[in-house]
Amino acid sequence: MSSVYPASLQKLIKNLSSLPGIGQRSATRIALYLVKENRELAEKLARSLLEVKEKVRLCKVCFNISEDEICSICRDETRDKRTVCVVESPADQVAIEESGVFKGRYHILHGLISPIDGIGPEDLKINELLERIQKEGIREVIIATNPTTQGDATAMYIAKLISERKKDVNITRIGLGVPFGADLKYVDRMTLEKAIINRFPMKL
Amino acid sequence: MSSVYPASLQKLIKNLSSLPGIGQRSATRIALYLVKENRELAEKLARSLLEVKEKVRLCKVCFNISEDEICSICRDETRDKRTVCVVESPADQVAIEESGVFKGRYHILHGLISPIDGIGPEDLKINELLERIQKEGIREVIIATNPTTQGDATAMYIAKLISERKKDVNITRIGLGVPFGADLKYVDRMTLEKAIINRFPMKL
Repeated sequence: MSSVYPASLQKLIKNLSSLPGIGQRSATRIALYLVKENRELAEKLARSLLEVKEKVRLCKVCFNISEDEICSICRDETRDKRTVCVVESPADQVAIEESGVFKGRYHILHGLISPIDGIGPEDLKINELLERIQKEGIREVIIATNPTTQGDATAMYIAKLISERKKDVNITRIGLGVPFGADLKYVDRMTLEKAIINRFPMKL
Repeated sequence: MSSVYPASLQKLIKNLSSLPGIGQRSATRIALYLVKENRELAEKLARSLLEVKEKVRLCKVCFNISEDEICSICRDETRDKRTVCVVESPADQVAIEESGVFKGRYHILHGLISPIDGIGPEDLKINELLERIQKEGIREVIIATNPTTQGDATAMYIAKLISERKKDVNITRIGLGVPFGADLKYVDRMTLEKAIINRFPMKL
């Protein structure tokens, strides 16, 4: 189908169709729009792609994406340096930050342990977390990986590593159970099971 | 529209359309099916409705629906009598029972406190719960009302009442937080807030 187009356009279509959620058809439509109707946007897009590639890097402390060597959260002196929330990805960090309740710092693992996919602990920022705990006087590590098989396994692996090395750090897991506003009768069994196991004393 | 039908059929349509999720159109369709195509089903349905009305009542202990004076769960000697799980409705009880993790008994409130709807504590089986706690030597009450405004308020109300009367009962709330299998970046803010607040020490 795309063989009728010039080689350069074919290459753009191919690259666009490598983007998540964009298939051959959408890619062709976008490419033709950029070529025929909005050449200015093509240039703007190209520039911002290069700019992002050039400027965005990982924070040296928490490994979140940042334009600076150390990200704005890690530089923020008003935040609690003694509490670190460990997440899988930058998107998870954004979700927790937007909830507004957490006022400590983060540590981004950039993945979960997954032997099937060949991802071991050494491929994640786990050693860097252990170094931070030694250096920064961290008192609590909240492990906020997803409540999935891999997320739970990674949480347990990290918790064991930390507890072996440092006894005076509280290692907690985010609350697992029934989501806010849910109706118990429509909640899946596994979640109810976790909700019963992870019940907690009521504060009066 | 339904005025073309005989009065008895109109009455059936009206009654059917009072059922949850059944509108005028579905009611008419069902009524006509029962009258024209499957009169036998009409009779079977009538009989089972009367049978249910006659036989099903509330368990005298936990107020769950039952055909017996005391339901099969309350009679089951292998279950832990010292732990009671408090739920809003029979459907919630079924959901928790199906998760398979809870081996105690239940107590069904038959509603939540809701001043707007004119439902006060006296309209629910709360006094009956307090009596059970006194009589049955209950050690733990797990409050498993939904994590909604009304569910949380009712949980808090019951927890306070129990703690005022009996100091040696553990009052716990089901785990509130991120549901099993969820992806943090798609979880709503309120749930993430609760998940951070209700974090718990990891067991190693």
